[in-house]
Amino acid sequence: MIRTHEAGTLRKEHAGQQVTLAGWVGRRRDHGGVTFIDLRDASGTAQVVFREDEAAHDLRSEFCVKVVGEVRVRPPGNENPELPTGDIEVAATDIEVLSESAPLPFPIEGDVNVNEEIRLKYRYLDLRRDAVAQAMRIRSEASFLTHEVMREHGFVNVETPTLTRSTPEGARDFLVPVRLKPGHWYALPQSPQLFKQLLMVGGMERYYQIARCYRDEDFRADRQPEFTQIDIEMSFVEQDDVLRVGEDLIARLWKDIAGYEVPRPIPHITYADAMARYGSDKPDLRFGNELTDMTEYFADTSFRVFQAPYVGAVVMPGGGSQTRKELDGWQDWAKARGARGLAYVLVQEDGTLGGPVAKNLSDTEKEGLAAKTGAAPGDAIFFGAGKRHATQELLGAARLEIGRRRGLIDESAWNFVWVVDAPIFEPVENDRGEQIGWTSVHHPFTAPKPEFADTFHEDPGSALADAYDLVLNGNEIGGGSIRIHRAEMQQRVFDVLGLSKEEAESQFGFLLEAFKFGPPPHGGIAFGWDRTVMLLAGQATIRDVIGFPKAASGLDPLTAAPTTITPAQRKEAGIDVIPEDAPAEG
Amino acid sequence: MIRTHEAGTLRKEHAGQQVTLAGWVGRRRDHGGVTFIDLRDASGTAQVVFREDEAAHDLRSEFCVKVVGEVRVRPPGNENPELPTGDIEVAATDIEVLSESAPLPFPIEGDVNVNEEIRLKYRYLDLRRDAVAQAMRIRSEASFLTHEVMREHGFVNVETPTLTRSTPEGARDFLVPVRLKPGHWYALPQSPQLFKQLLMVGGMERYYQIARCYRDEDFRADRQPEFTQIDIEMSFVEQDDVLRVGEDLIARLWKDIAGYEVPRPIPHITYADAMARYGSDKPDLRFGNELTDMTEYFADTSFRVFQAPYVGAVVMPGGGSQTRKELDGWQDWAKARGARGLAYVLVQEDGTLGGPVAKNLSDTEKEGLAAKTGAAPGDAIFFGAGKRHATQELLGAARLEIGRRRGLIDESAWNFVWVVDAPIFEPVENDRGEQIGWTSVHHPFTAPKPEFADTFHEDPGSALADAYDLVLNGNEIGGGSIRIHRAEMQQRVFDVLGLSKEEAESQFGFLLEAFKFGPPPHGGIAFGWDRTVMLLAGQATIRDVIGFPKAASGLDPLTAAPTTITPAQRKEAGIDVIPEDAPAEG
Repeated sequence: MIRTHEAGTLRKEHAGQQVTLAGWVGRRRDHGGVTFIDLRDASGTAQVVFREDEAAHDLRSEFCVKVVGEVRVRPPGNENPELPTGDIEVAATDIEVLSESAPLPFPIEGDVNVNEEIRLKYRYLDLRRDAVAQAMRIRSEASFLTHEVMREHGFVNVETPTLTRSTPEGARDFLVPVRLKPGHWYALPQSPQLFKQLLMVGGMERYYQIARCYRDEDFRADRQPEFTQIDIEMSFVEQDDVLRVGEDLIARLWKDIAGYEVPRPIPHITYADAMARYGSDKPDLRFGNELTDMTEYFADTSFRVFQAPYVGAVVMPGGGSQTRKELDGWQDWAKARGARGLAYVLVQEDGTLGGPVAKNLSDTEKEGLAAKTGAAPGDAIFFGAGKRHATQELLGAARLEIGRRRGLIDESAWNFVWVVDAPIFEPVENDRGEQIGWTSVHHPFTAPKPEFADTFHEDPGSALADAYDLVLNGNEIGGGSIRIHRAEMQQRVFDVLGLSKEEAESQFGFLLEAFKFGPPPHGGIAFGWDRTVMLLAGQATIRDVIGFPKAASGLDPLTAAPTTITPAQRKEAGIDVIPEDAPAEG
Repeated sequence: MIRTHEAGTLRKEHAGQQVTLAGWVGRRRDHGGVTFIDLRDASGTAQVVFREDEAAHDLRSEFCVKVVGEVRVRPPGNENPELPTGDIEVAATDIEVLSESAPLPFPIEGDVNVNEEIRLKYRYLDLRRDAVAQAMRIRSEASFLTHEVMREHGFVNVETPTLTRSTPEGARDFLVPVRLKPGHWYALPQSPQLFKQLLMVGGMERYYQIARCYRDEDFRADRQPEFTQIDIEMSFVEQDDVLRVGEDLIARLWKDIAGYEVPRPIPHITYADAMARYGSDKPDLRFGNELTDMTEYFADTSFRVFQAPYVGAVVMPGGGSQTRKELDGWQDWAKARGARGLAYVLVQEDGTLGGPVAKNLSDTEKEGLAAKTGAAPGDAIFFGAGKRHATQELLGAARLEIGRRRGLIDESAWNFVWVVDAPIFEPVENDRGEQIGWTSVHHPFTAPKPEFADTFHEDPGSALADAYDLVLNGNEIGGGSIRIHRAEMQQRVFDVLGLSKEEAESQFGFLLEAFKFGPPPHGGIAFGWDRTVMLLAGQATIRDVIGFPKAASGLDPLTAAPTTITPAQRKEAGIDVIPEDAPAEG
């Protein structure tokens, strides 16, 4: 090593020792012919003092230097209690510039707000900032703990292929041309789903992987084209067994990294309950302020807007005093979500109801309204009316917005909940909103709950899946299901989906073939690792916990990838070859 | 769990207990109305006994079943000492078929030799075989130990991107079209080389990753288009520091998995020495039988064949009694390696020399030959003459072949050696064998050894690299170097390579840009994980330690990938778009 000590480890007991440090020049102060420099390395920072040293004059920010000097206790009154090394300084006797630095595009030290595109273009400088480096270290430690927990539970870490076959999983595949078979393409996997099920057929019984996955989706604020998931699959298990492993993992991560003891078992809420009470399949339970189902209440209403299959309400505490402009703002908010608006009633301090909707309600309707919704004088009540699911989602979003605006959310709280009993199928609708079939909510291998095993095909809309999602503070961080392992049941699912034998064969052929050879009952779960670590590390976006993330545009400001390619590359990879047996349409 | 016990864990002390097992039907024996079945799960096998049970009659191989029964001590004389559960059996009271199995393409049990293409097509059945599953478990454990060792050494596990920019690293890149920027392509990384260096610029100081890498190479027996490497990079280090970390990792793996204490420090051999003595840059030191440099010996020879820049010899113990056919076989062997043949001399029992070469040698040459080469009566001496490097390689290959044929290699031995002091540059030759320039032996960021730092550009052919390879039993399992971190030195390397500023900029622009901002001295190493685990697990090919390998053809018999794609996929991914700024040639 070209240094004897790490800067951040020096303490009073090193006083008198000759040390060699290496790191970067941080803050610098010149004071009466003496130069003070914060020397930073990965372990922390130490103050280095140069007395009448010419060399020190040329040191600029982020020069990489090697310093030889003696550790001294700082003069009384000069200690810095905020720095672990604040009791000492290093009196430099020799300095060597290992490499110089050009002027920086943004300062490394201090909490400066820098445009994200610039941060990502100079990610290597961004990574020198304390908070950013710290997030990387948390991710590393979380990954290690995952390996440790899974090994303790007897899981085998298997690396599955990433050059594989295109499979239909909802999103678009990234494609890779194959030189050895011109005109043929590998796909990058959206998840190891099929391989993990094959490992169960292979008798591996307990598999996990920290797996890179790929989805060519349109970019939203918090998506990346490549992402990581903790992928887990088990044989001879029922739902509870999978949940227990998932909880063991999550509990260890939160305990060892956040110092938080996750209450066990993590509570369950049904999908129907989550939608009814919180208007979300990933409810944020850090606060109450639940939705009220008003459908019965308004069953006989003469107000046309509320003559709907579902009417619901959510209260905004203190919302009664909102200005006209604020109330109009809610209408725009709702319209941005595709709703017509957000009906509301203001509960006056005397208990009477204000706002435009109130005059459309009967006296009876008005009288019981506050009690029914739990609103108090000074509150506003927002209403949604229409199709159940979409309306609940609108009210759920309003609830979250209310929570944020009113400070109802305890930002220091951790709230974990399993959302269970989601439907297996959801209707496929045509442009006119008429149902034309069914599609899988998860994927076609999701098993029904045992009580629906024999009958799900008779009433697909009522059948519940043996599936589960783990939700933390309103974020889905994991999800999975028990899989179908019986050919007869799988066939009934394909029948509901309207998938012919040929279609099923062409889409899932190699998995169906494998299932002919004694597949075990199995199930699993996957955690979205970027989002999980983001929450665990208290970061705002998944980009903060990824070493070299793509920008929100989906492109890479650092390497300027993707790039054009040469005609020779096209030719060699067989990109322009269209094999005779390639599909002509679709 | 749908079982109470794992089959392989049952012992005498479970006798009398009611257990529920689940697993696969293995060997089956019917005997006097009683059916004996080996029930196999991931933990092992237990014998299950069915007495006059109709259900048992229908059980076929690899049915997946659940069995309820009582554990009993086997009748005296019926124990199976080769089975950990051999003292007991389970008297079945209930059986449930969880799923049936079609007839198998190959038997799961027993050491049957199955065509590899078939094994890979039904990899999920192959994985049910003990030895195959065991190799997967060893890999999993080796990966865990790696995480443990690296964490103990303070390394941060960072996941680097796999959708990135095409960079020139010797092999072809796999390409990925990008829908969001039609006509532009990501490349899959051949290694995280540039990112790991950026992490050092970013002050991460100690980085590692078990990284998936991609090379679109022509397939040889033991290559895969995607492979895994343990990727390590450190700042503020010299060669010894990197080697120590590498040895710590390797020593832990071999100790904990193979029960072998790697002698520390692992010995070093220079590249020049390895070539001179073993004719290989990855010498197998499990046996001696070294090459002898005969150039001086034949300096004044009148035998035209030996009038060459280099003449070397290797002895084949006992080779003097080879038949004419065997000796002719060596000529074919040499021709298959691109040589003209393999000159030889046979040392007769009386010490005289036989074979066609002997008559071309002077008496003096003949007299000292056996002593010079170390040959004894009854041995053969093979000769190579020509350009030094190629001839040494031919003799090195002959040495290995001799070792195998003569049983000189101790197959149970582990021999680790660091090969150091390789040249930085090697000549680029034209079709006529004339040197037209220089290329990097490793990559252009490899630093020269300190003693060549100021002068390497004046005599590139003599300059040695601050680089190192770890060789185990003649296999290169790891390699790395100290990197250049000074712009001035990097420029001299580009000058030697004949790379203009513009070319360097277009190939490595973002790394060179990063190096403007105080890069630290750094270096690293990468282990080829598939090959390392293959050796550790005692397997014959890397495919044996990969969950779902591609076949030797580079294609995937399991999923039948790669596949054709649809016109809609082509259009959506922008595959046929050629941007105006794309290169028109090359």
